[in-house]
Amino acid sequence: MRIYADNAATTKMSRQAIEAMLPYMETHFGNPSSLYTLGQEAAEALDAARGRIAARLGCEPREIYFTSGGSEADNQAILSAAAIGARRGKRHIISTAFEHHAVLHTLEKLKKEGYEITLLDVHENGLITAEQVAEAIRDDTCLVTVMYANNEIGTIQPTREIGAVCRARGVLFHTDAVQAVGHLPVDVRQEQIDLLSLSAHKFHGPKGVGALYARRGIPLTSLIEGGAQERGKRAGTENVPGIMGMAAALDEACVKMEADAAYVMGLREQLIEGLAKIPHSALNGDREKRLPGNVSFCFEGIEGESLLLLLDQKGIAASSGSACTSGSLDPSHVLLAIGRVHDVAHGSLRLTLNAENTPEEVQEIITAVEEVVTYLRKISPVWRDLENGKRQYIL
Amino acid sequence: MRIYADNAATTKMSRQAIEAMLPYMETHFGNPSSLYTLGQEAAEALDAARGRIAARLGCEPREIYFTSGGSEADNQAILSAAAIGARRGKRHIISTAFEHHAVLHTLEKLKKEGYEITLLDVHENGLITAEQVAEAIRDDTCLVTVMYANNEIGTIQPTREIGAVCRARGVLFHTDAVQAVGHLPVDVRQEQIDLLSLSAHKFHGPKGVGALYARRGIPLTSLIEGGAQERGKRAGTENVPGIMGMAAALDEACVKMEADAAYVMGLREQLIEGLAKIPHSALNGDREKRLPGNVSFCFEGIEGESLLLLLDQKGIAASSGSACTSGSLDPSHVLLAIGRVHDVAHGSLRLTLNAENTPEEVQEIITAVEEVVTYLRKISPVWRDLENGKRQYIL
Repeated sequence: MRIYADNAATTKMSRQAIEAMLPYMETHFGNPSSLYTLGQEAAEALDAARGRIAARLGCEPREIYFTSGGSEADNQAILSAAAIGARRGKRHIISTAFEHHAVLHTLEKLKKEGYEITLLDVHENGLITAEQVAEAIRDDTCLVTVMYANNEIGTIQPTREIGAVCRARGVLFHTDAVQAVGHLPVDVRQEQIDLLSLSAHKFHGPKGVGALYARRGIPLTSLIEGGAQERGKRAGTENVPGIMGMAAALDEACVKMEADAAYVMGLREQLIEGLAKIPHSALNGDREKRLPGNVSFCFEGIEGESLLLLLDQKGIAASSGSACTSGSLDPSHVLLAIGRVHDVAHGSLRLTLNAENTPEEVQEIITAVEEVVTYLRKISPVWRDLENGKRQYIL
Repeated sequence: MRIYADNAATTKMSRQAIEAMLPYMETHFGNPSSLYTLGQEAAEALDAARGRIAARLGCEPREIYFTSGGSEADNQAILSAAAIGARRGKRHIISTAFEHHAVLHTLEKLKKEGYEITLLDVHENGLITAEQVAEAIRDDTCLVTVMYANNEIGTIQPTREIGAVCRARGVLFHTDAVQAVGHLPVDVRQEQIDLLSLSAHKFHGPKGVGALYARRGIPLTSLIEGGAQERGKRAGTENVPGIMGMAAALDEACVKMEADAAYVMGLREQLIEGLAKIPHSALNGDREKRLPGNVSFCFEGIEGESLLLLLDQKGIAASSGSACTSGSLDPSHVLLAIGRVHDVAHGSLRLTLNAENTPEEVQEIITAVEEVVTYLRKISPVWRDLENGKRQYIL
């Protein structure tokens, strides 16, 4: 691999994050629940990490619950809000059609238990509006869950406006911020977010660790019963090294955020402009309201999987949609949600850049994609039909 | 800290385990769900780790599901078996009174959902028998869950005999083997175990990672919904470095198991003999059928917490019971289960040794415990009453 352009799937751990973990593996390895010095040192480190992460999100340390990652946090947030709703006779939940599967599948589970789920339509630009949320809220709505930024097309939702609507109507607001935290400034107080999920490995922290922010006073339902860790809401010996790595990675990402975002946005624009020159191609999602490093395109007449494999041969790591759904032959539910037809959605490419990428790499990606798309179209019966006028171009 | 004697709470990571993790943090950091080479390399590493762990347990790779630790594995195993039972109209579960809280609290949750739970009495020696299990099994029993070895008093249950009874009666058998795996030879086929939980940080692997073995054909219920990882039974990007560390640690533990067990058992015997000389003390749990490194004592007339704090001042890290329940003022449910009265159970001390401990350290522990127990008794009103004949000695 020469060029890694799939930072939405996972990121390379930063040196600082690794260095933050190592002492807690071999030296300060105590169990934070233990009374002796070695254990209490671990407990203090954990407290400090919780405080640092809380400060980055604008909340109190006690509002942070460590989890094994973003999926667990999403599950726990939604099931907790649903349980709170049920106790008040409220069993209606509002979400969108292009959430991550950790959200959608949890909602499907709740549907089987008798909850009613409203999935808001996503506009062609990959955005929903606070007005849509306001219109969908009913007396029996217990939760609105809308992702902060989409993992495939990178569009950034109007979280602050949605938060204001939810708070005014007394409805809990959860946001899957797995793609946003460490990349965008997130402030749970100002944005009136009640529950937020994050995952360390999306911002150069370790895999297998994440966090759930739950506003003070919101009682969480445990997914994992047992010991009294995380104030009784998440049992199991704390992943101290992982949590230390997460805190270090988040600090680093937040310190560098403004500079990195400006730089990465430059690369993104270069890449979008380059790929847009390929005929019958289209950017997915809003041009402006998107994650600094996200470029998502559809190319008519080709298969995304072949595109990826040939790019891989050229040393470029990219994806068609979410890594979590790869292996499936169905087109991305995100692209279908923004109105792409099946054929077009199949020809998708997601390139997600970070501050380690260079303009030279971006140029190399553009050249490679052009070559591969041209080649794949040459051997594509669909493309031949398009060229012969037997089918209509969509893009 | 000079002497670490709380290896049942957590262990220091081995160098080999750390070295096995590092490449997957910084170099081979791909998401195993990704199609490109970097992702597929991670997927292959994951497959290899799964195979190595399966080989150590005597099962097939596809019977291993990676989790965030032992508690998650316990929860998932029990909830899965309960769901299978419910589909067949079977809602009776058999367990013991001295299981880990990850088991007991999950059973309490099921009780609220209408399941009937039978907790078998544990004998004074900290053991249950297969006959007890056989007698308790009813037509509506869906699960027997009995820990492989107890986390506080180290007693090793007759897993093979229990497995045979369960298999003959068509009842699923789960064992929380968190304290056993890596320390005792475990073979799920020979012992007829259907579900088994393990945790990496108990055998010098990383915190935040564990596994659930589920015999082929046993459908698991997902605790965490979302992506299709772990054959659709455990969503979330796999903790590749953690899993690599776990596989390396388990390999190392199993290779060294026989030699380490013999050595550690020698230390254990030395420690038991030394502590037994303290008047009005008693070993908790069977003298023979116990984990190689586990020493658990009760000392009459003192408080375990004070004992721990003074030992800590002397540089010795020990615990009274389970780390997971520290912070609670209640005496250990395990010690109560084996018939220790409250007063005696309060004066408990667990020392869990490993192959890095030395006979000199053990002697130092014996001397320190003697001194501290003598001192604490000197200032204890309860002890004065015992000495004056106003109270009766129990031990």
